[in-house]
Amino acid sequence: ESFTVVGADGEFLCNGMITSDTRAQAQVNELTGRFGLQELYQITGHSPHTMFTLFKLAWLRENRPAILDQAARILCYGDLLGYELTGEAAIDYSLAARTMCFDIRRKNWSERILAEVGVQPSVLSCPVPSGQVIGALRPALARELGLSSRVAVVAGGHDQPCGALGSGVIGPGVAMYATGTVECISPAFDTLLLNDTLRDANLATYSHVVPGLYFTVAFSLTGGNLLRWFRDEFGQEEMRLARESGQDVYDLLLAQIPAEPTSLLVLPHFTPTGTPYFDVSPVSAILGLSLSTHRGQFIKALLEGVTYEMRLNLDILAEAGVPVGELRAIGGGAKSEAWMQIKADIMGVPIVSLNVSEAACLGAALLAAVGSGAIASIPAATTEWVHPRRVFDPAPANAMRYSERYSVYRRLYDTLKPIGQELNRLT
Amino acid sequence: ESFTVVGADGEFLCNGMITSDTRAQAQVNELTGRFGLQELYQITGHSPHTMFTLFKLAWLRENRPAILDQAARILCYGDLLGYELTGEAAIDYSLAARTMCFDIRRKNWSERILAEVGVQPSVLSCPVPSGQVIGALRPALARELGLSSRVAVVAGGHDQPCGALGSGVIGPGVAMYATGTVECISPAFDTLLLNDTLRDANLATYSHVVPGLYFTVAFSLTGGNLLRWFRDEFGQEEMRLARESGQDVYDLLLAQIPAEPTSLLVLPHFTPTGTPYFDVSPVSAILGLSLSTHRGQFIKALLEGVTYEMRLNLDILAEAGVPVGELRAIGGGAKSEAWMQIKADIMGVPIVSLNVSEAACLGAALLAAVGSGAIASIPAATTEWVHPRRVFDPAPANAMRYSERYSVYRRLYDTLKPIGQELNRLT
Repeated sequence: ESFTVVGADGEFLCNGMITSDTRAQAQVNELTGRFGLQELYQITGHSPHTMFTLFKLAWLRENRPAILDQAARILCYGDLLGYELTGEAAIDYSLAARTMCFDIRRKNWSERILAEVGVQPSVLSCPVPSGQVIGALRPALARELGLSSRVAVVAGGHDQPCGALGSGVIGPGVAMYATGTVECISPAFDTLLLNDTLRDANLATYSHVVPGLYFTVAFSLTGGNLLRWFRDEFGQEEMRLARESGQDVYDLLLAQIPAEPTSLLVLPHFTPTGTPYFDVSPVSAILGLSLSTHRGQFIKALLEGVTYEMRLNLDILAEAGVPVGELRAIGGGAKSEAWMQIKADIMGVPIVSLNVSEAACLGAALLAAVGSGAIASIPAATTEWVHPRRVFDPAPANAMRYSERYSVYRRLYDTLKPIGQELNRLT
Repeated sequence: ESFTVVGADGEFLCNGMITSDTRAQAQVNELTGRFGLQELYQITGHSPHTMFTLFKLAWLRENRPAILDQAARILCYGDLLGYELTGEAAIDYSLAARTMCFDIRRKNWSERILAEVGVQPSVLSCPVPSGQVIGALRPALARELGLSSRVAVVAGGHDQPCGALGSGVIGPGVAMYATGTVECISPAFDTLLLNDTLRDANLATYSHVVPGLYFTVAFSLTGGNLLRWFRDEFGQEEMRLARESGQDVYDLLLAQIPAEPTSLLVLPHFTPTGTPYFDVSPVSAILGLSLSTHRGQFIKALLEGVTYEMRLNLDILAEAGVPVGELRAIGGGAKSEAWMQIKADIMGVPIVSLNVSEAACLGAALLAAVGSGAIASIPAATTEWVHPRRVFDPAPANAMRYSERYSVYRRLYDTLKPIGQELNRLT
């Protein structure tokens, strides 16, 4: 997604353009209209969005054509680093796909798409499978770093599939459930799936970092940050207590939540949504508060709302042909047993917490271990490195009640959309 | 509304039945079906509800007929007290109307309605205008209390019209805005108005305690109690600070609200609604929260929501032929300048805070003063006793923004009703 343009003498021709840079909205509309949404999706597996490299290149072509004309290389940040380390410009399939210039079937750059922005495939890095050795450390650099020049540099991958690998997601039916600031569910599947359900839900299809598998990522940009919001705005007492006692402030907050499902319903769009809507100005909602609602119920309802949104994504994945029967939890949220149980009860599938804290780093390290021959295979590596800590099974009575409430939740976004649009128009 | 049944020897034949006693729902439905909603409304000025005496009498007739058959007197609490003080059973028109057995045009009991429950008008107290002398204190009681037996007992009235009188509402165009635990807006008007708009909004028409005027009361059962809820659930820090510093906890909370209108929208149905809906199981909503919403905005949004609901009532009153151009604020909320300004900005009319704290008591005292001849007239009494403290005019820029947001607010209840009903079914 993020990239930088390098000239013939290795100089940077412009500032890097990063994922969250939204200047290319006009180019998204224009290029999608010209090329066709379905056509773009069928080639790249992605739905158009300002985050992807293609539209930023289109912006450069329109606004700074000289930069593209002088480009010797266009490097995303992963291959930029590999290039600096080895002198070889290589990019793995998963990161290549995130440019939206990549043909996910042929596993090579799409000349048709690149022609739209006047870029030659040769200025882009060479696509390789994740885990493939790119090259050896440049001798001068090896000396400078005090490392052997036999150190191999191995192609890694996009952070989400690396995280999934680091969670042991190496076959279909299992997904990573990353629950930190934001929430992601990332399943693997073994055939190239492209369909309207996935596309309409903005669920991109691309190569997993495990050879032969494909991958998608469902996400909500509101996640654990919602609990942090509660802490900052309503948790003064707990923050004081945490400072005084040395306890974790989130433990103090989560200790207040009741055991049973709340009677509240939260549409957790406190930020732009993730999948399925990609709504940049949604409206959040808290329904059902009464004068007898306690703060613990309020806190729990926030967590329930985030989880309903992820359940919605899980259901869409199943409809699209990607059923998930087990979730593997990583991230800060995985540390709370109360939170994990809410997730299991609402998602309706077992959630396994792991011995892994930094799953994406572990996944990348694992690719290096296998790529360099230190470990025989990916299954051997995950068996050795990734272990379940605890399994949270859905509690049948709560799961039943949540399932009923979720059916109401599913109608909430559409019900509130017209009101939300009115409000946004006024704000 | 509340009443008790007295036997031939002055003994109480059953426990009193109070306003909030809802056992007579079946009788509401049955009697309304038999007699006709419009017919009942045209005679009594009220829409059927379990709170009114009529339906409780119907319940007794059906379930405890012997009690009604033995009744020598059926006394509401005001006339019960007057009867004990003077030996005369008299009830003022406003309290008589709250039985729903009273013909508000003829200002006498409706024999047709009473026949439905088999009660003779003679067992009810004699209807008199508010401010009329009922009688003198019984000599034995005067001696016991150490008072002159020349002390006159004067007919008072229902608490809301007494409060309006105590706020100086003695002519059309002005209304009391009582803002305490709940919120009430009570205007006076000078012709007997009965129409579908009032009836559908559950806005009863009955005699004001000022002779010749009529009266209605719009109310929300969620009011200042919402700020108390916030204090109890989210104001631990302010409560601690208030204890330590001796400051008022509400002052500490209200000091945090921003000057400008919030971008949130609150449907303040944290309790059963009042007018216009009389919805006993509504759903509340807070819309538009984001990760950058501060607690001060949250607090302000709660107050805005309550005020939008009262603005809705004010608009319905205007549609029904009861325009209000000035509000006279009493109650705890009137002490906060910030809160008063929000109200003025949203209501779009000036709000006058008064030197009065207990307006209903003042109104009753004022009726006694005029009735006993201590003061010449009601206008003379209010001129002497009721003084404006400060006028809060709508600030044009904020009033404009609130007006736009209110137009969205008006759609919120209907939009959420189906979802709310689903949720209530599940809870």
